[in-house]
Amino acid sequence: MVKTYVFGHKSPDSDSITSSLVMTNLEKELGNTEVQAYRLGNINKETEFILNYLDIDAPELLENIEDDANVILVDHNSPSESVENLENANILKVVDHHKLALKTSYPLFLRFEPVGCTETILCKLYEENNVEITKEMATLMLSAIISDTLLLKSPTTTEDDKKAVTKLSKIAEIDVEEYGLKMLKAGTDLSSFSIEE
Amino acid sequence: MVKTYVFGHKSPDSDSITSSLVMTNLEKELGNTEVQAYRLGNINKETEFILNYLDIDAPELLENIEDDANVILVDHNSPSESVENLENANILKVVDHHKLALKTSYPLFLRFEPVGCTETILCKLYEENNVEITKEMATLMLSAIISDTLLLKSPTTTEDDKKAVTKLSKIAEIDVEEYGLKMLKAGTDLSSFSIEE
Ligand SMILES: [Mn+2]
Ligand SMILES: [Mn+2]
Ligand SMILES: [Mn+2]
Ligand SMILES: [Mn+2]
Repeated sequence: MVKTYVFGHKSPDSDSITSSLVMTNLEKELGNTEVQAYRLGNINKETEFILNYLDIDAPELLENIEDDANVILVDHNSPSESVENLENANILKVVDHHKLALKTSYPLFLRFEPVGCTETILCKLYEENNVEITKEMATLMLSAIISDTLLLKSPTTTEDDKKAVTKLSKIAEIDVEEYGLKMLKAGTDLSSFSIEE
Repeated sequence: MVKTYVFGHKSPDSDSITSSLVMTNLEKELGNTEVQAYRLGNINKETEFILNYLDIDAPELLENIEDDANVILVDHNSPSESVENLENANILKVVDHHKLALKTSYPLFLRFEPVGCTETILCKLYEENNVEITKEMATLMLSAIISDTLLLKSPTTTEDDKKAVTKLSKIAEIDVEEYGLKMLKAGTDLSSFSIEE
């Protein structure tokens, strides 16, 4: 079976990193065993907080892909925000919540919804495919929704995001406000900057 | 509530016409009452056979749309195959099985799958949303899948199309081979051409 690369956008945020992990798990559950999550850049402080909370590793860094590589894009679709050589890849699927900026010469699987976070869509895909959402997956999804919607307060927040948070916080056994504020605060942690900055 | 126009591509085939009707019904079932199916050109002989079989009218002809009109595209996404003034419309949703040829400046709902027919995707959308597929809707969906896949024999045919046909033929109470051959034959009916042609 040929390998499939799953990744979010360059300068990855928490939605891009967690969605690559959550989408990879979904593909495996659906029988695509040769699938692997990647990242297109360094992990930020907020994402580091999430991965530390779960004690899991960040996806491997992806520098470039070979011609005809099978790829799945999450949390982006614009080639300018994606991997080098995307134009020669075989894009199998895209799950995203941004404006449409991709063209293809072949049909593919697309699942876009105008919601606050890619993980809100992935949460639906797990349900529709009757794939169990584990505590770890729920924590990843929930963290990204909190991040993208700023604790459900951003103007991009929809009813679907709120429903997902209610469902996922139960599975993850997480107090949304308490965990969310700690997580968002970790993202604004300036302790790694020197005094001059 | 603002009106929503639902339509398939120019020079409409049976998938474009039936999908506009089936998508409109789905939207109504989901609470979007101000939605209406349209066509971007004349009905062909095959589609006429389907509409006559069900004794239903063809969708109204759409010449153009006003700026900021709400639209839902089915069975196409390329602006070159769509209505005039699409660039100034507000595209709410696209359900399609073709290559990706559309760009937008805003997020929207997209459901694309690399299957043989748009109706195969719509059949899934009814299931996922727990909307009943009536005998009439099943007949429309089934007819389009038979048309686009040439009775499940075209190279674009997938397992999903076959599953949909099995399910829909039971609801529609239709013998697929018998009905399908009559329908495809109606589409190649040359009786309306003069001897000179
Ligand atoms: Mn992002
Ligand atoms: Mn996002
Ligand atoms: Mn068509
Ligand atoms: Mn079609």
